[in-house]
This record gives sequence, structure tokens and C-alpha cells, in this order.
Amino acid sequence: MYTTKALKSLFLEYMEANKFEFSPRELFEPVDYILQLGGKRLRPVLLLMSYNLYQEEVSQSLPAAYAYEIFHNFSLVHDDIMDEAPLRRGKATIHHKYDINTGILSGDVMLIYAYKYLLDLEKKEAIPEVLSIFTKVSTDVCIGQQYDINFETAKQVTIEEYLQMIELKTAALIAGAMYTGALLAGATKVDCQNLYEFGLNIGTAFQLQDDILDTYGNAATFGKRIGGDIVQNKKTYLVLIALERANSTQREELENLLSSRPIDEAGKIEKVTQLFKELNIKELANKKRDEYHLKALENLNDLAIDKKKLIPLKEVADSLLQRVQ
Amino acid sequence: MYTTKALKSLFLEYMEANKFEFSPRELFEPVDYILQLGGKRLRPVLLLMSYNLYQEEVSQSLPAAYAYEIFHNFSLVHDDIMDEAPLRRGKATIHHKYDINTGILSGDVMLIYAYKYLLDLEKKEAIPEVLSIFTKVSTDVCIGQQYDINFETAKQVTIEEYLQMIELKTAALIAGAMYTGALLAGATKVDCQNLYEFGLNIGTAFQLQDDILDTYGNAATFGKRIGGDIVQNKKTYLVLIALERANSTQREELENLLSSRPIDEAGKIEKVTQLFKELNIKELANKKRDEYHLKALENLNDLAIDKKKLIPLKEVADSLLQRVQ
Repeated sequence: MYTTKALKSLFLEYMEANKFEFSPRELFEPVDYILQLGGKRLRPVLLLMSYNLYQEEVSQSLPAAYAYEIFHNFSLVHDDIMDEAPLRRGKATIHHKYDINTGILSGDVMLIYAYKYLLDLEKKEAIPEVLSIFTKVSTDVCIGQQYDINFETAKQVTIEEYLQMIELKTAALIAGAMYTGALLAGATKVDCQNLYEFGLNIGTAFQLQDDILDTYGNAATFGKRIGGDIVQNKKTYLVLIALERANSTQREELENLLSSRPIDEAGKIEKVTQLFKELNIKELANKKRDEYHLKALENLNDLAIDKKKLIPLKEVADSLLQRVQ
Repeated sequence: MYTTKALKSLFLEYMEANKFEFSPRELFEPVDYILQLGGKRLRPVLLLMSYNLYQEEVSQSLPAAYAYEIFHNFSLVHDDIMDEAPLRRGKATIHHKYDINTGILSGDVMLIYAYKYLLDLEKKEAIPEVLSIFTKVSTDVCIGQQYDINFETAKQVTIEEYLQMIELKTAALIAGAMYTGALLAGATKVDCQNLYEFGLNIGTAFQLQDDILDTYGNAATFGKRIGGDIVQNKKTYLVLIALERANSTQREELENLLSSRPIDEAGKIEKVTQLFKELNIKELANKKRDEYHLKALENLNDLAIDKKKLIPLKEVADSLLQRVQ
């Protein structure tokens, strides 16, 4: 079995050997650019891990891991255009470095190349199902993105709607990666399905953690500005649970704060976090994330494998879901 | 065997039964909108025709025909954003009717649904090859679009480069549709390949015809404004062949005209067409289009079918490539 670090190294080697060194460069150079900005490579590593639960040698699943990473980055490229985001991982987004048209067209070709890599898989008999699950979860990502856009202007968003949105936008792709790794490795349908559910639950936990870290994280390790969601008036889990728990005075204050764009952003962040504190939001959000984490671990209980093999997977989940004090 | 009209009807019925009536409507309603704007349905009809050369009953190939039509419309949606085009088939483009973000995201989901319909094909054993050819030609469309963008600001574009661009941007998808129809119908590899080549040649002829009609067509039947390419300074085949044939005085005049944006657009169109007349451009362009048409017909010579079956296919080509007087 491979360690997480070894799987990531294998994947990075594969990426390096499969750069988008094609012509015309105006189309493909931006693809290389975005893929080389780094990141945790979470989806490909999880896909390889899922495969590695059933097979010692993982190289056959590398094209699928790459496909999921390419799709994930495609979705970032197009989302960053829609969100008018200038930065991604501390570097210029494609549409800022080049232009919007480049972001659109290079993104399109990435989506096509994700399919191309899945079609490159050696296990030809698995291709229709691998592509079907990929098509399903990539549709989910688009639907999730649409809900996210809708929520920006929606008067009210329920917690249930929010959780469904992040399941579609974030967790589905992770679930698809888990399913695909196991499927390619010859796991049973039941195991594939359990790993898919694991992906949905752990992916939702990751997004809740992201919401928590955006307010309570450490700027140095989080990599984004603390309080960014508050400044942008995003309806995160923290905000929605706060609105649910607030008395009418608190709700009015929170709604006023989160529909304003004051110059004193630090003051706004402080007022919102003060309200969060009164309402015990950090604890409630931690609890919700832990619920999903626990459900994810339960999805692993019935897998037809030696339970020791689950250690690296559980470690990755733990390291990404560390409780914020 | 079906008539062209019958195939188009069958396809329109299938489309009607497979509308994008999903939620969220913000994402899928624009897809229905663009798909219902009409058009010749050339790619799906050609795919069905190619299938019908080998099989009497065509219904099994309808999902593939739909996939090609969805992809074609996806490419129009994203191209129209890039070109800032307000109108498509006389109606508002998606990004004008809704907004750019809707155009991007609804376009993305269309690309994914094109794959989804191909995965729905009953002939499961053909799916990997059907998807590979689709992935190849859809990549070609993106590359062709990039060359088209590059040519806008390029100082010089050779005729060879232009013909390669339209082969990628326009003809490749038609070629893929022809190949896929035959493949699904169980044709030999040689026949599939010949029909692919037919598609490349006839698709290039269609685009050359489009260039010709843009200057010499009848406004009522062409559906676009006559002289639009000239107004927009597009480097069409007509312009490139004119630049090649022009003496230094004529070239200078043409280059000046085609780098200007005068208020008197009609005057500009008249001056350019006068130069075209001096250089015999209409005749030269007709000749080039006829060359591709002839090559396309030659690609049909060696097919392992009764030649009478080719009549509807040849009629479609003839009707779209009528000589402009």
C-alpha cells in the first residue's frame, strides 16, 4: 500500500508527464498554468486511495485521477469568471492573467480533456460506467454552482437547501472520484456505493470546515483572507445557522450587517463574529461538520477489505477536519 | 430508407420528447431556449443519414444525433459570448437574453449532456469509440475557435491556415457526425473513414459557401445581413484570395478598407465588392467550394452500399451548395 505522500508524488509525476504542451499555445498554455498552481490534489489522491484499497499497484487509475483533477480545475476557471475572482491560490486567475474569452475556451477544452483521459483508461470494459458516474457528478457540480448563484440573491435560504447545494457543488465530485477508484480496482457495487456515500459525507464535511476556517482559521495556513465570506455577505452554514438561532433583534442586526458593504471591513467582521459568539455558532458548525465526518466513517465500516487499509484515508480526513479551537 | 424531411421530423420529435425540463430552471431553461431557436439541424440529419445508409430503422442513433446537435449549440452559446454577438437566428443570444454567467454555465452543462446522450446509446460496445471520435472532433472545434480568434489580430493569415481553421471549427463536427452514424450502423472501418472524409470536405465546402453568401447571398434566404463579414473586417476566404491576387495598389486599398470601421458601412461594402469584382473573387471562391464538393462526392465512391442510397445525401449537399449567380 502507498502512503498519501507517495500517491500524491505519483500523481504529480503523471501530471508532469502529461502536460498540455499542444498547439495552439493560446488555448493550452492557460490549462498548464492553472494545473500547475498547486493545491492539495485532493480528488486525484482520494481516487488513487480508493483504488489502492483493492489493488496494490495504482498506475492504471492515474488517467482517471487526472481527469478528476482537470475537471475540478475547469470548474474553478469558469467559476472564477462568474465570481469575478482576481486570485486563485494567491496567483492571477486565468481570466485576469489572459482574458475572459481565454477562460471560457480553455475551460471548455479542459472539460473535454477530462473525458479524453477517462477514455484512455486501460480497463475498457469499465469505461461506460466510469463515464456515466463522471457525467452524473459533473452535472451535479453545474447544478450546485447554479444554486450557489441563486442563493446570492435569494431572500431566504434554508439550511437544508444549503447542505444540498454544497453536496452538489463540492461533495459530488469527491464521491465520484471515490466510486471511480474502487470501480476501476474491481470492487463490488456495494463497496463502490459505500465509498460514494463516504465521498458525499466527507466532501460536505470539508466544505463545512472551509466555512468555519473562513471565519475562525489561521490566515497563514488557510491561504485565504480570514473573514472573506463575511465581507462578501456569503450565506455560509455559519450565517444560516446564526439566522435560525437568532432572536429578532440579533436577526435584524445580522441581516443588516450582511446586506452592507462598509468601508470598515474589519469592523463588520468583528460585529458579525461577536454575534456568532453570542449564538455559539463555532460550536454548532463544528458539531455539524463532525456529524458528517462520523457518517463518512460509518460508510467505511462495511467495506469488504482489511480495515487496516483504511488508515491513510482516515488520516487524510482527520488532517483536513481538525477541530478549530 | 427515409427522406431528408422524414429524418428531420424524426429528430425534431426526439428533441421534443427530450427537452431539458429539469431543475433548476435558471440553468436548464436557457438550454431549451437555444435548442428551440431552430436551424437546419444539419449535423443530426447527416448523422441519421449516415446511419440510414446501412440500417433501415434509425431510432437507435437518435441519442447520438441529439448529442451532436447539443454540442453544436453549446459551441454557439460560448462563441457568441466571445464574439459579443447579440443575435443568433434572429433572436437574442443566451448571454443577451440572460447574462454572461448563464451563457457560460448553461453552455457547460450542454457539453456534459452531449456526452450523457452518447452514453445512453443502446449499442454499448460502440460507446468507447463513439466517445473517442466525439472527444477528438470537439477538441478540434475548440482549437478551430482559437485559431479563428488568433486570426482576428494576426497580421497575415495564409489561405492554407484559413482552410485548416474552418476544417477544425466547422467541418470536423460534421465529419464526426458522419463517422458516428456509420459506426453505430455497423459499417466497416473503411466506410466510416470515407464518410468522415466526406464530412470534412463537405463541411469545408459549406463554410466556403457561407463566406460567399455573406457577400453575394440573398438577404431574405441567407438570414443574416449581407456584407456583415466585410463590415466586421473578417478574414474570410474571399478576402484572403483577394489579397493574394491583388496588385500592390489593390492590396493597399483592400487592407485600408478592411482595417477601417467607417460609419458609411454600405459604402465600404460597395468598395470591397468592387475590388472583389476586379479580382474575379466570386468565381474563384465558387471554384474552391466546388473543389471540396467534388472531393466529398469522391469520398462516397468506394462505400460498400448500393449507390442509389446516396441520393438523399447528395441532394442535401447540392441544396446547400447551390452556385450563387
